[in-house]
Amino acid sequence: MVNIQELMAGATGADARLMRGFADRAAGFRPSPVRDVFEVSMRPGIISLAGGNPDLELLPLEKIGEMASSIIAREGLEVLQYGSGAGLEELAELVCSFMESEGSRPTLDEVQMTAGSQMGLDLVTKLFTDPGDVVLAEGPTYTGALGVFEGYQAEVQQVEMDEHGLVPAQVEERIKALKAEGKKVKFLYTIPNFQNPTGVTLADDRRAELVRVCRENDVLVVEDNPYGQLGFDGTRHRSLHSYDPEAVIYLGSFSKVFSPGVRVGWMVAPPRVRKFLQIAGEAVTICPSVLSQRLVLGFMSEGMWESHTRKTSKLYAQRCRAVLEACEQHMPAGTEWTEPEGGFFTWLTLPEGAKVSNAELALPEAIDAGVVFVPGTAFYDDSAAGVDVTEPAGARNLRLAFSSVAPERLSEGVSRLAGVL
Amino acid sequence: MVNIQELMAGATGADARLMRGFADRAAGFRPSPVRDVFEVSMRPGIISLAGGNPDLELLPLEKIGEMASSIIAREGLEVLQYGSGAGLEELAELVCSFMESEGSRPTLDEVQMTAGSQMGLDLVTKLFTDPGDVVLAEGPTYTGALGVFEGYQAEVQQVEMDEHGLVPAQVEERIKALKAEGKKVKFLYTIPNFQNPTGVTLADDRRAELVRVCRENDVLVVEDNPYGQLGFDGTRHRSLHSYDPEAVIYLGSFSKVFSPGVRVGWMVAPPRVRKFLQIAGEAVTICPSVLSQRLVLGFMSEGMWESHTRKTSKLYAQRCRAVLEACEQHMPAGTEWTEPEGGFFTWLTLPEGAKVSNAELALPEAIDAGVVFVPGTAFYDDSAAGVDVTEPAGARNLRLAFSSVAPERLSEGVSRLAGVL
Repeated sequence: MVNIQELMAGATGADARLMRGFADRAAGFRPSPVRDVFEVSMRPGIISLAGGNPDLELLPLEKIGEMASSIIAREGLEVLQYGSGAGLEELAELVCSFMESEGSRPTLDEVQMTAGSQMGLDLVTKLFTDPGDVVLAEGPTYTGALGVFEGYQAEVQQVEMDEHGLVPAQVEERIKALKAEGKKVKFLYTIPNFQNPTGVTLADDRRAELVRVCRENDVLVVEDNPYGQLGFDGTRHRSLHSYDPEAVIYLGSFSKVFSPGVRVGWMVAPPRVRKFLQIAGEAVTICPSVLSQRLVLGFMSEGMWESHTRKTSKLYAQRCRAVLEACEQHMPAGTEWTEPEGGFFTWLTLPEGAKVSNAELALPEAIDAGVVFVPGTAFYDDSAAGVDVTEPAGARNLRLAFSSVAPERLSEGVSRLAGVL
Repeated sequence: MVNIQELMAGATGADARLMRGFADRAAGFRPSPVRDVFEVSMRPGIISLAGGNPDLELLPLEKIGEMASSIIAREGLEVLQYGSGAGLEELAELVCSFMESEGSRPTLDEVQMTAGSQMGLDLVTKLFTDPGDVVLAEGPTYTGALGVFEGYQAEVQQVEMDEHGLVPAQVEERIKALKAEGKKVKFLYTIPNFQNPTGVTLADDRRAELVRVCRENDVLVVEDNPYGQLGFDGTRHRSLHSYDPEAVIYLGSFSKVFSPGVRVGWMVAPPRVRKFLQIAGEAVTICPSVLSQRLVLGFMSEGMWESHTRKTSKLYAQRCRAVLEACEQHMPAGTEWTEPEGGFFTWLTLPEGAKVSNAELALPEAIDAGVVFVPGTAFYDDSAAGVDVTEPAGARNLRLAFSSVAPERLSEGVSRLAGVL
């Protein structure tokens, strides 16, 4: 993996001179290990179980193209111009009704459109965390979130999950322990549905309780829900936001059910907090792409979204089954994996005493064997003092993404991987 | 104008509770005064001299629509998918050759695509400034830049210009004085061509010297050039970057010569610094919109850019003349204004002893009279201690934007405004 310390130490000439002027926070920047293996994934013959890309093969491209053409020809003067910093009002309205299927009823002044939900996470972190403040997250969690938190010099504290997600009592215990140390715990970042990287879903009967313990302890909940619409059987879980809209900021995404390439997401927050998020967002991109927002609006409102989501959920369900069956068939005895009910990922745990004690070290051999994955360590913060260097968190784990690979290739990929493990 | 202190103080309920958890930097967030008058500008009958929007009427919308349709139908699997964090390589290559017209010869590994040049400014500020570090800027400067600097808790120091822009000796003097106070001066932010808000252009014979004094004093130059291609007579000035690519980070934009609504810009920096900017950028938006980048690439490479730039430059030249002639005709004796050679703006200075001693206070009356502008105070940092409250910087100034209003409306707008002044 690309290492910031190496990047900094290895600089020469103009780079080295300029880098002496870097802000302190630059030391916390974290290159994405997923993007790191991006180029390897592109090599011919390589089966990539690394990238969590949605499958776009089922998108009606001709139809979307025609829609884009008509929008630009008719509404070009608006969609190619600067737009509102809060986002396209018609799309925000659609988001409001869209969220009702998860039990949320936001009002228009609570919805902030973003250039992707990653940006929502950046803005909420920028708005709430001073250096040294604590952010709680699941252990393991989305590696791109760790990059945001570390970039703002937050202290990341990861709380273990069981097969039903976070345990509210454990979250509360951790908050109390951190507060007892005099730390400021700003928010809990959580992906309740088909989590990245584990595929685990927070049990419905823990949701109210999780929100309650956070609110009682004055810790904001940041709910990230990029996969929630992709339950294999169509189940939509109630959002954490729906339990207490005053205690939860919700991050939504169109990347997984339409297109990541247009970069459109949204966030929901109480009105005045939302206004601050807008001001912070305008400083970053002035406004989200108006054309992109208009295309999403068209895709959603012209009925393409429903059939596409239904079809792709089935596709991902098949692929998930293919990966799990291949694991059953090929993985060394004692290896465990999660059984996701939606989303893009499963999470492998190697048995104690396995040949491979750190999956990261097995990556080059796996690449030689024609398969690539993301090692479990990528999903843990390794910047804290006291990290176990002999067996860092996630060392015996691998994330396998099944979203964008055909079933037979998935089986072959798992078989190649098993050979290395 | 919307005021952060008022927003914070006026909060109740959930907002107030959550806002107690805000980071310190939130107090420096700055709502855009330009965006503030956006809604007023939309009222029927109002002539807006406020917003610096490009005129899109001359864009070949049908043709752009057809291009979009064909791109999505043929390349949808790529352009609707996640893309490289560095940006679309073909577009970065085009940027490299494009910059040759300004004397710069960047290599591909020095080019970072962004979701608009505002994002470039955000990333460079994030990478280089710790709270309390000094950023130098022109006085007055782009209000959206002030928002970025203040959001990262930088201390903004503005250096006056004359009719030929910044005076290198004065910049050096200021740097030395600040260093003598023990301050860290991280970079000079400058818009050398047809500056926002003044329309002033840095004289060519000051450019090498300005870059030299900054480099000698270990101060990075951040060159923002959104208007450089819009000289009224087609003149392209040499970039500051071309004088010393090791000492200048360049910010480029497609917003003014194509479309702000697609949100695409770029930045140029030494290779390893660029890599850090990419990592910082990935934490904000993962990648710039691939579809947007591909549309820009099509617009530029299919020859639409050249004819559009030629036509719009002429249009802006006519409008500039109309505004200046109307000022000549209507403005009170002693009023001064800049005579831009390109771009979107002219800058008015009211005479001492004028009826209106602070243009900000005249804004409501102007709106009643059917015209809106941005008061000069918006382009100065007002967060520093020792700000003169009786006559704050920019109080006797107004920015008039002529880019998106027809000549006869411009004359009428200036006439209405003169009635108030």
